[in-house]
Amino acid sequence: MDGGIELVAGAFDINPRKSKQMGRHLNIDPKRAYKTYEDMIEGELRRPEGERIDFVSITTPNNWHFPIAKAFLEAGFHVLCEKPMTFNTGEARQLRKIVKKSRRVFALTHNYTGYPMVKLAKDMVRQGELGTIRKIVVQYPQGWLAHEIHCQQADWRTDPKQSGAGGCIGDIGTHAENLAEYMTGLRITEVCADLSSFVKGRKLDDDANVLLHFQKGVKGILHASQISIGEENNLAIWIYGDQKGLEWHQEHPNSLYVKPQNGPEEIWKRGNDYIGSQSPAAARATRLPAGHPEAFIEAFANIYCNAADTIRARIQRKRPDPLALDFPTVDDGLRGMLFIETVVKSARSRQKWVKMPKA
Amino acid sequence: MDGGIELVAGAFDINPRKSKQMGRHLNIDPKRAYKTYEDMIEGELRRPEGERIDFVSITTPNNWHFPIAKAFLEAGFHVLCEKPMTFNTGEARQLRKIVKKSRRVFALTHNYTGYPMVKLAKDMVRQGELGTIRKIVVQYPQGWLAHEIHCQQADWRTDPKQSGAGGCIGDIGTHAENLAEYMTGLRITEVCADLSSFVKGRKLDDDANVLLHFQKGVKGILHASQISIGEENNLAIWIYGDQKGLEWHQEHPNSLYVKPQNGPEEIWKRGNDYIGSQSPAAARATRLPAGHPEAFIEAFANIYCNAADTIRARIQRKRPDPLALDFPTVDDGLRGMLFIETVVKSARSRQKWVKMPKA
Amino acid sequence: MDGGIELVAGAFDINPRKSKQMGRHLNIDPKRAYKTYEDMIEGELRRPEGERIDFVSITTPNNWHFPIAKAFLEAGFHVLCEKPMTFNTGEARQLRKIVKKSRRVFALTHNYTGYPMVKLAKDMVRQGELGTIRKIVVQYPQGWLAHEIHCQQADWRTDPKQSGAGGCIGDIGTHAENLAEYMTGLRITEVCADLSSFVKGRKLDDDANVLLHFQKGVKGILHASQISIGEENNLAIWIYGDQKGLEWHQEHPNSLYVKPQNGPEEIWKRGNDYIGSQSPAAARATRLPAGHPEAFIEAFANIYCNAADTIRARIQRKRPDPLALDFPTVDDGLRGMLFIETVVKSARSRQKWVKMPKA
Amino acid sequence: MDGGIELVAGAFDINPRKSKQMGRHLNIDPKRAYKTYEDMIEGELRRPEGERIDFVSITTPNNWHFPIAKAFLEAGFHVLCEKPMTFNTGEARQLRKIVKKSRRVFALTHNYTGYPMVKLAKDMVRQGELGTIRKIVVQYPQGWLAHEIHCQQADWRTDPKQSGAGGCIGDIGTHAENLAEYMTGLRITEVCADLSSFVKGRKLDDDANVLLHFQKGVKGILHASQISIGEENNLAIWIYGDQKGLEWHQEHPNSLYVKPQNGPEEIWKRGNDYIGSQSPAAARATRLPAGHPEAFIEAFANIYCNAADTIRARIQRKRPDPLALDFPTVDDGLRGMLFIETVVKSARSRQKWVKMPKA
Repeated sequence: MDGGIELVAGAFDINPRKSKQMGRHLNIDPKRAYKTYEDMIEGELRRPEGERIDFVSITTPNNWHFPIAKAFLEAGFHVLCEKPMTFNTGEARQLRKIVKKSRRVFALTHNYTGYPMVKLAKDMVRQGELGTIRKIVVQYPQGWLAHEIHCQQADWRTDPKQSGAGGCIGDIGTHAENLAEYMTGLRITEVCADLSSFVKGRKLDDDANVLLHFQKGVKGILHASQISIGEENNLAIWIYGDQKGLEWHQEHPNSLYVKPQNGPEEIWKRGNDYIGSQSPAAARATRLPAGHPEAFIEAFANIYCNAADTIRARIQRKRPDPLALDFPTVDDGLRGMLFIETVVKSARSRQKWVKMPKA
Repeated sequence: MDGGIELVAGAFDINPRKSKQMGRHLNIDPKRAYKTYEDMIEGELRRPEGERIDFVSITTPNNWHFPIAKAFLEAGFHVLCEKPMTFNTGEARQLRKIVKKSRRVFALTHNYTGYPMVKLAKDMVRQGELGTIRKIVVQYPQGWLAHEIHCQQADWRTDPKQSGAGGCIGDIGTHAENLAEYMTGLRITEVCADLSSFVKGRKLDDDANVLLHFQKGVKGILHASQISIGEENNLAIWIYGDQKGLEWHQEHPNSLYVKPQNGPEEIWKRGNDYIGSQSPAAARATRLPAGHPEAFIEAFANIYCNAADTIRARIQRKRPDPLALDFPTVDDGLRGMLFIETVVKSARSRQKWVKMPKA
Repeated sequence: MDGGIELVAGAFDINPRKSKQMGRHLNIDPKRAYKTYEDMIEGELRRPEGERIDFVSITTPNNWHFPIAKAFLEAGFHVLCEKPMTFNTGEARQLRKIVKKSRRVFALTHNYTGYPMVKLAKDMVRQGELGTIRKIVVQYPQGWLAHEIHCQQADWRTDPKQSGAGGCIGDIGTHAENLAEYMTGLRITEVCADLSSFVKGRKLDDDANVLLHFQKGVKGILHASQISIGEENNLAIWIYGDQKGLEWHQEHPNSLYVKPQNGPEEIWKRGNDYIGSQSPAAARATRLPAGHPEAFIEAFANIYCNAADTIRARIQRKRPDPLALDFPTVDDGLRGMLFIETVVKSARSRQKWVKMPKA
Repeated sequence: MDGGIELVAGAFDINPRKSKQMGRHLNIDPKRAYKTYEDMIEGELRRPEGERIDFVSITTPNNWHFPIAKAFLEAGFHVLCEKPMTFNTGEARQLRKIVKKSRRVFALTHNYTGYPMVKLAKDMVRQGELGTIRKIVVQYPQGWLAHEIHCQQADWRTDPKQSGAGGCIGDIGTHAENLAEYMTGLRITEVCADLSSFVKGRKLDDDANVLLHFQKGVKGILHASQISIGEENNLAIWIYGDQKGLEWHQEHPNSLYVKPQNGPEEIWKRGNDYIGSQSPAAARATRLPAGHPEAFIEAFANIYCNAADTIRARIQRKRPDPLALDFPTVDDGLRGMLFIETVVKSARSRQKWVKMPKA
């Protein structure tokens, strides 16, 4: 999107022939459209330094994240990886060790934290604009899995062998968890969860309602769903401090609502000078002037840009811009996995409060 | 509002002198501005039949609802009463018996069910428009008690001696509970609750997060708050069936959002012919043409109108219009009290699931 | 609505029998349900002073406004009258003289100026919050007359013998004109108009697009329509100064949008303390706390309340509260009639700019 | 954005050194970062066929569009050009001849027609969903030029030597005009305009209010502004037929509002299957699933994609996909220039109706 990253190689499909085809479609050098990820590592390592890929982006079903990430990291490549980070927390803990040891950049695509107004919200919370945080409500309702459907996107997500222990709570619940922790800097300490599978024969949860306790006595609710018909991708968050409240909606990402106790509600709008004054991170994540809406792709690209800037600095043995370090890491990934595990445990134990294990 | 009810007598304040004053202000016959509710009963009974009040409206703090309602019912008067219905469930059960025995009309002012679009939603659910209900999200955030404040409205609401066991959950949580049950006809069967008091020294909860189980395997969330700064009176509900979802917001009460699985979202708007075709109850609750917004007072008046029409029919020994019977009753009041009690019990037991007792 | 006005007499229908019926329905003393407005004047005058009506409210088709208003004013009664004020400007000028001579209160029900947020907007403009006004956009689209329909409300509005020279421009265009002038205190100086009749056989305009010049070089646009299908009663206004802009929508009347040059957009919400600090007139026009929405009926009642308070003060030979004088007068009514006449003249002359005559 | 177009050469600045710099920044072969557009043509022609650029994209101030477009077209290159197309209508007519003669693809970046929901609206109108069109309201208010400011974007836009006869009406008014004609297929036949320059010393209009007549008796209003403080890029359109109305807002581009006469208002949302069924052009212009918002960049890219697909087909001597031909052409550009000229003429003649000349 911004000309800073070039796609030069890949293993684009579990079917080697399709990978080749996709390579052609993408105008990739045919030699670098690999049959498997192992071939890819081998092939790239065979190339002279400086002509290899700098990093790999892992966008497979969850069960493949760990082996692929491990292999690339251990081969010396930086890694961008889809969320949830691994199949289970065991892998997540291992991966964290591998990342630390490898000294490579590992970025997790919790893409919603790439939105400028999310970064503004985070900065406002940190700067104390809201006062002491008291309550967080975060939701992520979707309706697309309200019935049994079969397609590439649906199949692996509803298969515990590919997805792991969490269905809805893993696929989108972790985005909600990550967003709440990212914006507030507060960690969830315990959860009390109610998971359901409404669609007959579905093995994983497709609806999740969770009570949350955060650090510092902050209370919260998280609800996520794949059976909420009419909802598309309605991630939204409300944060209430003892001075102000705020509200953000992913489907209308260019506005942040800020609500003082006795004064007009404010709509902060992306792309204006006053945004940049409050949040350099938001300004950095902005491409277009106010009123020229930016959306999902740009937010996703912001995660890539920051990770790529950090990787580029590493390669050039420079210090990265501190703002470039603003992307989700292996620690966020581990927290997401612990969250899934803890929610599932709470739900299975008939909704007792369960503490989040230490990362 | 509609000329069907005349205010002719009252005990308007716990301070007899103020009651007299208010009577003058309201142009009430000074003899009928009573010092106490007991005086009022006595005074009205002394008047010839046909010149007495037909019904009384009880709008005191919660702890006075029961004795006053009891006294008027036993004296033969019909009663409209504020919610929550009583101080505790014991009183609520007694009151139910008294109402049944008295054969008088008892109406509870769960005023939000008076909105035309709420009635439309109820009728759409009953008619199967949404298919089988799966999930209900209902919220009632306010921010006005985010800090310690002192005024008539705040004082009794935060005093357990006047309010009862529930603070926020009693004052507004019961509206949310009632709205969900009214719209869907489904009863809450068990709850798992997290209550908090954020304001120092406050004895009752000012924030409530509750997981819900309804009949027929329906799952839900209810959250209510008095410390959510920037929220005014943001009662809202989302109901998801296996065919459609719907959404309604009290602060924008003239629209009902209906969302099919694969079709445009619909905004049903009060006052149009197509509303009346779907819901005669909504049409009956409508005074103005489309685009001429109606709001809180009109919805409140609708509860009064239906109750008054029913009382009028009783007095005239006629059958009331079946649509006039659409107002909250002593049974709804008892459910509300059981809900408060069960939520408090769940919260005190550290958030175990607790079953709603039989009414 | 507020207990300050009692309906005690009337001539409720052009058909005397129906007038009697309506009187019964309204619980009016049968003697005071008059056959004609002439009877009403005579009958009321025959009653002892102090037992007569204080004012009359004229809600007939336009062609009857003048004779009725004239008769009541000359008989010594105060008058509230529907808009547009008269059948033509000749009558309007005469009526103004009659009002001045009669020394009675004459109020015109441009009801939309009764909304609290409209009063706030007016006060903000006057206080210079927007800086120097530059541009005004005001719209009033409706769709209910998009086809030939026959009903009481539609018939007289589309009949030039009852409505006068303006159709849409008279019925709703004058509301838009009045709103713009009320909020800004600026008078329209000339207009350039395009009127259309889209429905076959319709004799009056059902769609109006008008360029406006206001005093002080302010530019504007007014468009109104009765054939804009899907629009209900979508009166809305945007005012732009050289410091801020503002925006208000009748269908969501509890919010006023205020937009600074480089700062977050603000949503000012009815019922909050900060509203009253900015605008005592808005506070006075408010009955319910924030978040408990008020709407059309309350706004309409505010016109009645202010006029009635003024009338009451006259009767009691007191000075009215200055804020009570905030209701549309015979001068506003004359301006409305001149506006209709000028727009029609401009449209007939094939859209030349035509100056508004002096009132 | 989609991998179908590669930036390989350019003359990036009127200052040759800056052009070189920008070339480096963009990772362009230094030889192909040209000092001037003439050098670029010469340089590219010198390269072997197949290694030259396929098309050029002209994004200079308006006064440069014509000479550059002419030069590239005559050298055999395809051209994408910013709007308004030329400095005046004389150039526009010439350019049209040159395009026809050159047999090259010429695309104009009226980027707002690249939005999927705009394409859906167009298809709905063509398919008769709205019935016979009656009225069009189109607006384009901005506030960024409300005061004298100096920056690259502002300077040339307010300079008649670079911008041409229109300021606001040329820069954004033409977008509004193009959007209305694109969606409805109806041509503006005459205009009656009021242009203003509110900022002291500004030579071009910064505010435009225009009455419109379209073919077939359709009436309209267009207003555009650069001094409407608080407005960012608020292009929006309302189209009313005799069966339905529709509404679209550029700042919330993923929704299209469709309003039947007696039925719920509908919100059609990008990315759903039912959109594609109604409009293959909308589906083709869509990259992401529903709820994953797309915005300005993607819409702009859609114009590029369609033009590039058409150019690619020409190069490959294939028939382009008929849907690829959906991009603005030299004819649209000429209409835009005639619109500017006619509006200015009407405004100068003190707002007489002026007919749009034949293209």
